[in-house]
Amino acid sequence: MSMGLLVQKFGGTAVGDPERIRAVADHIARTVNSGNQVVVVVSAMGKETDELLRLAEDVSSKRPGREMDMLITAGERKAMSLLCMALHDLGVEADSFTGSQAGFLTDTNHQNAKIVEVKPERIQMALSEGRVPVVGGSQGVSVDNDVTFLGRGGSDTTAVALAHAVKADACELYTDVTGVFTTDPRIVPSARLMTNVSFDELLEMTATGCPKPAMRSVEYARTHGVKLHIRSAFTWQEGTWVGEEKVEMEQAIVSAVTHDTSETKMTISGVPDKPGIAASVFRALSDVDVNVDMIVQNTSEDGVTDISFTVPHGDLEASMSIAENLVEDIGASGVSSDTEVARVTVIGAGMRSNPGVAASMFETLAENGINIQMISTSAIRISCMVAENQINEAVQALHETFGLAES
Amino acid sequence: MSMGLLVQKFGGTAVGDPERIRAVADHIARTVNSGNQVVVVVSAMGKETDELLRLAEDVSSKRPGREMDMLITAGERKAMSLLCMALHDLGVEADSFTGSQAGFLTDTNHQNAKIVEVKPERIQMALSEGRVPVVGGSQGVSVDNDVTFLGRGGSDTTAVALAHAVKADACELYTDVTGVFTTDPRIVPSARLMTNVSFDELLEMTATGCPKPAMRSVEYARTHGVKLHIRSAFTWQEGTWVGEEKVEMEQAIVSAVTHDTSETKMTISGVPDKPGIAASVFRALSDVDVNVDMIVQNTSEDGVTDISFTVPHGDLEASMSIAENLVEDIGASGVSSDTEVARVTVIGAGMRSNPGVAASMFETLAENGINIQMISTSAIRISCMVAENQINEAVQALHETFGLAES
Repeated sequence: MSMGLLVQKFGGTAVGDPERIRAVADHIARTVNSGNQVVVVVSAMGKETDELLRLAEDVSSKRPGREMDMLITAGERKAMSLLCMALHDLGVEADSFTGSQAGFLTDTNHQNAKIVEVKPERIQMALSEGRVPVVGGSQGVSVDNDVTFLGRGGSDTTAVALAHAVKADACELYTDVTGVFTTDPRIVPSARLMTNVSFDELLEMTATGCPKPAMRSVEYARTHGVKLHIRSAFTWQEGTWVGEEKVEMEQAIVSAVTHDTSETKMTISGVPDKPGIAASVFRALSDVDVNVDMIVQNTSEDGVTDISFTVPHGDLEASMSIAENLVEDIGASGVSSDTEVARVTVIGAGMRSNPGVAASMFETLAENGINIQMISTSAIRISCMVAENQINEAVQALHETFGLAES
Repeated sequence: MSMGLLVQKFGGTAVGDPERIRAVADHIARTVNSGNQVVVVVSAMGKETDELLRLAEDVSSKRPGREMDMLITAGERKAMSLLCMALHDLGVEADSFTGSQAGFLTDTNHQNAKIVEVKPERIQMALSEGRVPVVGGSQGVSVDNDVTFLGRGGSDTTAVALAHAVKADACELYTDVTGVFTTDPRIVPSARLMTNVSFDELLEMTATGCPKPAMRSVEYARTHGVKLHIRSAFTWQEGTWVGEEKVEMEQAIVSAVTHDTSETKMTISGVPDKPGIAASVFRALSDVDVNVDMIVQNTSEDGVTDISFTVPHGDLEASMSIAENLVEDIGASGVSSDTEVARVTVIGAGMRSNPGVAASMFETLAENGINIQMISTSAIRISCMVAENQINEAVQALHETFGLAES
């Protein structure tokens, strides 16, 4: 690794116990001793955030966002100060900084605050003194001077925003996976660790089932051109670089296959094909914070159509009740749902100039006797909804068809 | 209770678990609903501070004060946000404030920071909006903008300083004891809960074995004239008021009997009676932070004297090694120590004008066959060192002699 200024972010499992904290400190120390400057971002230890949430539920049925943020941010506070102590033990001078101290100014939207500005004066001062700043992830201070939390997974966003603010050469996101794979290695053992992936591809992958990193941080990185390196805090091997397409692209047309079994398919049938009908359905769902995904509307026959969409399993009951109320209002004939579905997606920036990918995907599924229930596409992605019990077969077949396995 | 502005401080056992937090919230809500304004100060839950200290020891052998303070203050942060949530559940609008947000500016002496100034603007703003501010105890922000911890027991100091800063009518220290007793009720079951005690008496009691509250907070309260009320967070009954002597004094000459078994007696014998000898002994001990108490020097016989003093049991080894090194330098004949000792103390502001107390004390001990090994006095206190196995008998006899039991 060449020398430079790096942001290193460590997730909750990476610092899950004292032994892990010492292992992470050791890695940081080695990075520093190789001649790099390092800014560290750290999440709360292991399951601590969940434990704090449970404690809040035990104490009160009313949990104002301001107080939840004060509570939750105690988690990173512990991790960052302990990590600094472990660094001192290795002879590395390190100082912990809260989100506020690190200059993260946010809006007042507690529990899910947005960064307004990053003023990293104290971080830069520490760096200039040869010290390692260790910043609590997912934290900030609002324009009202209250402590704010950027939300679950917000430590990735902290790391990327800080990398941009201090003009770091790269932002390393250390996690419990080795990097980004061409598909889920639990389903396809020959899945290949991707050396490079583009921001657009990674965003599509994250949106369709790839667990890491948080989508928001990838969007931030893309907008600000922050080079990401997703890698393991357990094996420490090189992981996956995420950057601009033009610079980093692999040659393959299809880069990865993802899958997602967390959603239910809902269909409103016999919907009159009139302007405003779809809007009323999705406005009603959005009003109760149901996160609707993959909307498909068939072409109209005889002036009526079907609208299908997916919702998270946990939102099914609320969504069904809203849809059933709407059926009469909009003059539809009925609502149905199917939880036994799963989505398989192929992703690749090369698709833009290769229109044959969709046909290959549909042929592969057909050859394997897998029926396609819904289709949706973007410029670099094709998703098909299939029966849940055929999802592994679908992933394996598509991974094979597009030649993604390790050679 | 008349209406007013109260500071209510709750210690760790008072908020030890979710159920206790709800009980404390209920008491605060009742105080507010009776027409009072309340500012709350809260310590970390139960044994949390100890757990954080243990975690730090597990992680590193180097634990810089700055990082320890960042770590430890996470404890109060949890307690204060949870308590606010419990208050909201009862319909009481409450906001938590860190030491920094509450305006506690301190010096940079981490782990044991001193308050430089309290600027309680945000607390007063919350009060003026009819909200209950809940402040994390024992915290502040240093002139270098770093998080500081006032030390163990510092929440009492936070409460008293805040009561002074917002001009509260009283500062209520809620703890796991009912108040201040004439002596330890475990030794003398008829020990009486004192309705009133003066600052001077309470300071002498705290210095000689009465466990609560922290001496520093009592000194702060005396200096600034903050009226204290020490009471129980479990029975909620009226406890002990602490105030100026002239206003609040009980009539008794002796108010309380305390005892202390935490110290060891050391004697340096055959010390030449020359200027500077004692100074060299106690300077050497002070240089290694040994907290020397109860120094007694006999009158010189034949130009030599004995110097006896007490040190905490835990400091005995270090103290002996220093004293042994000094013996030759100062021309003394030897050093000895005795861990099987205990101190019994009678305290009373009325002693100032009643010289017979010492005689009564010595007679009582003699009548009970208890030999006095050392004596030291102040204007309102007489302490005698006796054999440890006679300490309960000494306490019981003196409590009886001075008529302190409940009638």
